[in-house]
Amino acid sequence: MSAEVTPFETRLRSATQEVVIGRGHRFCLIGERINPTGRRIFQEQLRAGDLSAIERDVAAQVAGGADVLDVNMGVPLTDEAELLAKAITLIQQLSDKPICIDSSVVEALEAGLSVYQGRALVNSITAEDERMEAVLPLVKKYDAAVIALPNDVDEIPMEPEKRLDLVKKIVDVATKEYGIAIEDIVLDPLAMPIGADTSSGVAGFETMRRVRDEFGLNMTCGASNVSFGMPERHALNATWLPMAMTVGLTSAIMDVRTPEIVQAVKAADLFLDHDEWGMAWIGAARAKKAAEASA
Amino acid sequence: MSAEVTPFETRLRSATQEVVIGRGHRFCLIGERINPTGRRIFQEQLRAGDLSAIERDVAAQVAGGADVLDVNMGVPLTDEAELLAKAITLIQQLSDKPICIDSSVVEALEAGLSVYQGRALVNSITAEDERMEAVLPLVKKYDAAVIALPNDVDEIPMEPEKRLDLVKKIVDVATKEYGIAIEDIVLDPLAMPIGADTSSGVAGFETMRRVRDEFGLNMTCGASNVSFGMPERHALNATWLPMAMTVGLTSAIMDVRTPEIVQAVKAADLFLDHDEWGMAWIGAARAKKAAEASA
Repeated sequence: MSAEVTPFETRLRSATQEVVIGRGHRFCLIGERINPTGRRIFQEQLRAGDLSAIERDVAAQVAGGADVLDVNMGVPLTDEAELLAKAITLIQQLSDKPICIDSSVVEALEAGLSVYQGRALVNSITAEDERMEAVLPLVKKYDAAVIALPNDVDEIPMEPEKRLDLVKKIVDVATKEYGIAIEDIVLDPLAMPIGADTSSGVAGFETMRRVRDEFGLNMTCGASNVSFGMPERHALNATWLPMAMTVGLTSAIMDVRTPEIVQAVKAADLFLDHDEWGMAWIGAARAKKAAEASA
Repeated sequence: MSAEVTPFETRLRSATQEVVIGRGHRFCLIGERINPTGRRIFQEQLRAGDLSAIERDVAAQVAGGADVLDVNMGVPLTDEAELLAKAITLIQQLSDKPICIDSSVVEALEAGLSVYQGRALVNSITAEDERMEAVLPLVKKYDAAVIALPNDVDEIPMEPEKRLDLVKKIVDVATKEYGIAIEDIVLDPLAMPIGADTSSGVAGFETMRRVRDEFGLNMTCGASNVSFGMPERHALNATWLPMAMTVGLTSAIMDVRTPEIVQAVKAADLFLDHDEWGMAWIGAARAKKAAEASA
């Protein structure tokens, strides 16, 4: 909308497929389900070296429309680096979608990057010096893109102004000290649960609008956070995403298995002129109708 | 979001109830169904002087959550002024919602205003001199608010810049020549069908954002227009409204009988901090659950 800054394109690749995140492109869906957090049985399987459940998760996310797959292998009492590397190798055999390598453990990120075929998205850094020092050299070495959260060691600031200060810090450090291209920084504006503080929605939209207008960065976030603790979470998520897209969100890490949420994103893509002639919308409506008719 | 201009409050009243349109308030739903356009049987009834069908339409719009009722009695080959006055008198007996008096016929607007109890919303003027000269004196005389469309006799301009020029013209004429308070001008940004031109969505959002930031005007529009000619219209309308609300739309003229669209508006109200503690959202979710349990 405002065009002070040329929109950036963040290019992710598997061995065979490229996905572009950018304001001139349709919204990028990063499927979030390949993650054992809160899944006891999956954790036990992974701890025993059984990666077979991953196949079902990959298939479900791809079927739901994921453009990129977020992969997190944070299982307590395992060698996360080894597990993440194995999982990434397996997933690259199962799917040609680019991968978002998701870990709080630096050694796991490096292990994942070292086996990854293509150009990955690293999840994530914060504005903390220690985290940037540990992760940004890997991002540079492996020619990846990186998700950046504007919080530091003290706090997650609620005020847009403070978040913007941290965005500036991250951009300066990543580009000037580590030579990361600015279009490879994907900013996470930190979507907070609306049920905990009803002013957090407006603060989030204002943060996104300013990140877009003042920095031009692409943005992603964990979209289901916003509805945490509230009833009718799907309806809230399906409303929040188009609102966030209107002020600059270009991607989200989300479980794509809920058709109404994915449909809302596709409708927003149409209204933001990312669906030429509306052909994707019309095609999806026809496919849905055909599926209903045959059911 | 941007706060260069103090948000205006447009106050509408019936004999007993006040509704405020404004950025600090929840979205105002103007129920659009009390209108014979395209309804042959209803037209015949009205032509025969039978207004009984209005009762059902009023009840349905109120049940769906309408805050204001749009009333249009444009039936060919009738005395629209007489019919509109009768309908308004009847509707004010049936409901305490303020009314949006909707007619292209100046005499009908005056007849409606002359019987109306309260503070009405007049639908509508354009930037055409002749229309403003005919309608604005009535708006002033009857102390009403007015919907204004930024098109003139030649065209409906697609470019935000041209629409903004017409907004400026309307605001200047209405406030300086007719003494209308600026908060009583409710701007219709002219939502166009996305299926006819996929660039019209972005142009519309840009127009709304600028009307909000540069003029501070409240806005309303015929929300179902955007999905005209496309499949899955409800899903499109339910996505477009929250996007438009994010850039300044404060009201819409819409058929409130589709729960998924009304729910999307309520979700957007929550994210825009118009639902204190989220109590309206939580209450609606509980009521829905209770209704499903008893069904």
